[in-house]
Amino acid sequence: MKASQFFISTLKEAPADAEVVSHKLMLRAGLIKKLSAGIYNYMPMGLRVIRKVEAIVREEMNRAGAVELCMPIVQPAELWQETGRFDAMGPELLRIKDRHGRDYVVQPTSEEVVTDIARQELHSYKQLPKNFYQIQTKFRDERRPRFGLMRGREFIMKDAYSFDRDPAGAQASYQAMAQAYRRIFDRFGLRYRAVAADSGAIGGDLSEEFQVIAATGEDAIVYCPQSDYAANMEKAEALAPQGPRPAATQPLQKVPTPGKSTCAEVAELLGVPLASTVKSLVLATDRTSEAGDIIDTQIWLLLLRGDHDMNEVKVGKVPGLDQGFRFATQSEIEAHFGCKPGYLGPIGLQKPVKVVADREVALMADWICGANEEDHHLRGVNWVRDLPEPDAVADLRNVVAGDRSPDGKGELAIERGIEVGHVFYLGTKYSRAMNATFLDENGKPRHFEMGCYGIGITRLPAAAIEQNHDERGIIWPDAIAPFTVVICPIGMERSEAVRAAAEKLYADLCAAGIDVILDDRSERPGAMFADWELIGVPHRIVLSERGLKEAQVEYQHRRETAAVKVALADILAHLQGRMGA
Amino acid sequence: MKASQFFISTLKEAPADAEVVSHKLMLRAGLIKKLSAGIYNYMPMGLRVIRKVEAIVREEMNRAGAVELCMPIVQPAELWQETGRFDAMGPELLRIKDRHGRDYVVQPTSEEVVTDIARQELHSYKQLPKNFYQIQTKFRDERRPRFGLMRGREFIMKDAYSFDRDPAGAQASYQAMAQAYRRIFDRFGLRYRAVAADSGAIGGDLSEEFQVIAATGEDAIVYCPQSDYAANMEKAEALAPQGPRPAATQPLQKVPTPGKSTCAEVAELLGVPLASTVKSLVLATDRTSEAGDIIDTQIWLLLLRGDHDMNEVKVGKVPGLDQGFRFATQSEIEAHFGCKPGYLGPIGLQKPVKVVADREVALMADWICGANEEDHHLRGVNWVRDLPEPDAVADLRNVVAGDRSPDGKGELAIERGIEVGHVFYLGTKYSRAMNATFLDENGKPRHFEMGCYGIGITRLPAAAIEQNHDERGIIWPDAIAPFTVVICPIGMERSEAVRAAAEKLYADLCAAGIDVILDDRSERPGAMFADWELIGVPHRIVLSERGLKEAQVEYQHRRETAAVKVALADILAHLQGRMGA
Repeated sequence: MKASQFFISTLKEAPADAEVVSHKLMLRAGLIKKLSAGIYNYMPMGLRVIRKVEAIVREEMNRAGAVELCMPIVQPAELWQETGRFDAMGPELLRIKDRHGRDYVVQPTSEEVVTDIARQELHSYKQLPKNFYQIQTKFRDERRPRFGLMRGREFIMKDAYSFDRDPAGAQASYQAMAQAYRRIFDRFGLRYRAVAADSGAIGGDLSEEFQVIAATGEDAIVYCPQSDYAANMEKAEALAPQGPRPAATQPLQKVPTPGKSTCAEVAELLGVPLASTVKSLVLATDRTSEAGDIIDTQIWLLLLRGDHDMNEVKVGKVPGLDQGFRFATQSEIEAHFGCKPGYLGPIGLQKPVKVVADREVALMADWICGANEEDHHLRGVNWVRDLPEPDAVADLRNVVAGDRSPDGKGELAIERGIEVGHVFYLGTKYSRAMNATFLDENGKPRHFEMGCYGIGITRLPAAAIEQNHDERGIIWPDAIAPFTVVICPIGMERSEAVRAAAEKLYADLCAAGIDVILDDRSERPGAMFADWELIGVPHRIVLSERGLKEAQVEYQHRRETAAVKVALADILAHLQGRMGA
Repeated sequence: MKASQFFISTLKEAPADAEVVSHKLMLRAGLIKKLSAGIYNYMPMGLRVIRKVEAIVREEMNRAGAVELCMPIVQPAELWQETGRFDAMGPELLRIKDRHGRDYVVQPTSEEVVTDIARQELHSYKQLPKNFYQIQTKFRDERRPRFGLMRGREFIMKDAYSFDRDPAGAQASYQAMAQAYRRIFDRFGLRYRAVAADSGAIGGDLSEEFQVIAATGEDAIVYCPQSDYAANMEKAEALAPQGPRPAATQPLQKVPTPGKSTCAEVAELLGVPLASTVKSLVLATDRTSEAGDIIDTQIWLLLLRGDHDMNEVKVGKVPGLDQGFRFATQSEIEAHFGCKPGYLGPIGLQKPVKVVADREVALMADWICGANEEDHHLRGVNWVRDLPEPDAVADLRNVVAGDRSPDGKGELAIERGIEVGHVFYLGTKYSRAMNATFLDENGKPRHFEMGCYGIGITRLPAAAIEQNHDERGIIWPDAIAPFTVVICPIGMERSEAVRAAAEKLYADLCAAGIDVILDDRSERPGAMFADWELIGVPHRIVLSERGLKEAQVEYQHRRETAAVKVALADILAHLQGRMGA
């Protein structure tokens, strides 16, 4: 490609509403252009990156035996009503009425349509396993679209769906996809981690997220440097402390803590570690009639160590809380605790409350909690002596760095990641809802065992940039760079020698199958270099009249700070040696 | 590709609602699968065809210097309000409200968005000309979607938009696209015609449709076998007859024609050629106030020869009718003609009516028309003697086969076509509406001169099938076949010799870069052959134990009725000789 025949549009400054570096750089480098909130034009430079991402995904999906098809973007509501998602999904599901008033949705994902295809097309166990995938535009009407392609409303996703005859087959399909994903992410040339994710009630451990490591990532990912344990924060288990609960050493004592309503304030006031305080979180569960009226409400008190954070996914698995819970209202709290939030605790309750202690809290002694009296806390609190054992003990919290690894092989560390892929065992959730069956060896209808597998095609470039950039701009891995090599001739418009050499080098690199762009725009060197450093093309070759007199060009990798001189005759070999390095 | 790793799904019978042969065959061959009215899944076999169409279009667009980008499917209404199309377009424009109640549309085309990009990105004449294109999903909420991908609601279109500094530049961009389109359609391997189309008020002659010739086509296309004249029916000019109007030879006479309200019935009753009758069509034009109230209405009488059809596009260019017209109501007709339709004519009007005669009628003598009296016609009607010359004479009719070619080089012929591409000079219609300007050499802002260029990516395969099929199924041109070659081994599951030879041949063809599928499904030969004839793969190689004993295979082109024996050692060369043939 020659720059004069392409479209290059760079900006000195990013628009003010771009918050994260990838968003800023994608706008500045002219990869994308905002059309509306969370909706972007993929500009020529950005589309090249997206197409390279797609090509790698497609190759590896095909290699793994998946078959590509393409499902419609506009899908009839009937199918979404079969699974209940038409009503269950919130306003992220973009709903449309057509000219005849019929309901449609813009696909956010395609479980319903692919299951509809399977129930019509996959009649027999002999046709299984089958894995259908598409690379297709999706829409999710995010409440707060932000960060450019990171959390857009319209985006491109690769979504694959496997159909198997039994759970063992589904597990094999799942593993084949997890393997393919490793190959895909290896090929992208990004640092990533495959982490265990929560699979809800269905899948046991068959759910993994593929996270691109980046300090700016939205997700906390947990891993053990001493082993291959890795999980996302929702999933990572906090083991119970080792050893028994220590004996009480302090008397129970009510202390005034005027205006100190947080554990941190209380710990500071009392001069004790935050880890000796316990926070009280009050939840409620409602029992409802078939008509949806509330029959009765149970109030729950969750106790976590002051320095720990609640993990909602884990709380949602506590028996009694696993059918849905909410935070208690102020009036419910006052009725049960006789006190407003900030000074709550498990001792001296006004009405029955179920107490669930985090594993850590259950083994604490001499702890501090609210006294259920405004401006007062209790210290020296001890189980059994001061209050009964909790109704339940569970893992309620997020792990923190230094926690023991669940596999017992070391201590957990935490880093940030950006989720760009997900493999998930679905079981028969959709096949049952849509009565999608095949005939087994005995001629009996059975529900498909399904898995689903996504890659955020348009999010991937944003994640790659979050991981790979510097103050000058983007640094693309070779595999997904818009161009692998840029030729920057200096003074091409003045020097016939430079022009001829540049054109010849360009032709040679094209002939060698290298994805090269020749910058024939006649920009000044400074502006030209700044453009390509911003755009992030990994390999740059500079031709100048002076260099050519010595039959030399300058080569510089985007990650390096200085250029090296290379004989013009050797540049192709030099480049090939550096590419993919 | 091996069939066992792909997805093949053929049907003996097409669903009852499939009317045209391409729709039937696409369903039967498993290329597409209906999801909703006018909305189809592109199944794996069909997607391969679509991707090949896309690849050819993309290569030729790039070669012509167009730059690919990708615009959003969901587009904000604001831009569509700037051009007025948000209100002007009918319900084909699918309108959406997002979660915040903001208006969006699903793109049916992208003039607004691309013009918005241009006005932000193309600042200077130095950046021009520029041609942006995308290959992207579109949606038009057709009132009556039908014929499968021929007139679907969701479809894939390649849409390109050129931006130029002046009309001469725009004309050059237009011609470059028209050339690229010829290359594209040549490469598809289809018989097609580029025909002049009506460009409305803007573009002079700069509008051409690319029509795939097919007896079942919806469009009539007009051409001159003796020259390169070709136009669509809307555009093709009917020349005035040569020579002067003949003299009157018959007296004016009122004849009873009870119950005979059509020209054909009257001609039959009177025993005269249909071409001696004149039909009367009554139109109305309303003058309205700014508030939209009708101030007054003009009634028009159009006179066409009884065997000719009115051409609405041409009528819409008659001065006075060129701001919009409608058919007159029954009561308007009765008020002006004193008679109900079926017996109308230009003689003896009750109120003033503007009379427009087709060029042909203006030169007729001794003609027949309604008497403005129920059950009566006039015969022997002659201009000047019996009624004044018409208020206007114009080309009002569709041409018919045998008419003189407008280029004077022969007689017109008519065939049917399917429109799959369109190149169109837009002028400044959109750039003015959206105030999209660039700075010219003098630093003055000027509106872009634009062109737009579409190819119906998903309609193309349907058109190809309408043109290329037989009673056994589809016959793909090599360039867009889902697979170019199919290897059909007979008894592969029993014979190790067949299996080994098939696998080796498959590997050899893959290595030669041939897009081949090996049918390793172990189907019976009859079913296997029927599948591939239905699917339409152009080149078939059959391997059998008997043939292999003589080191021979059978080759058959899909268009041929018999196979030829080819030495196994020669089959690659034989195939290469036949491919693209």
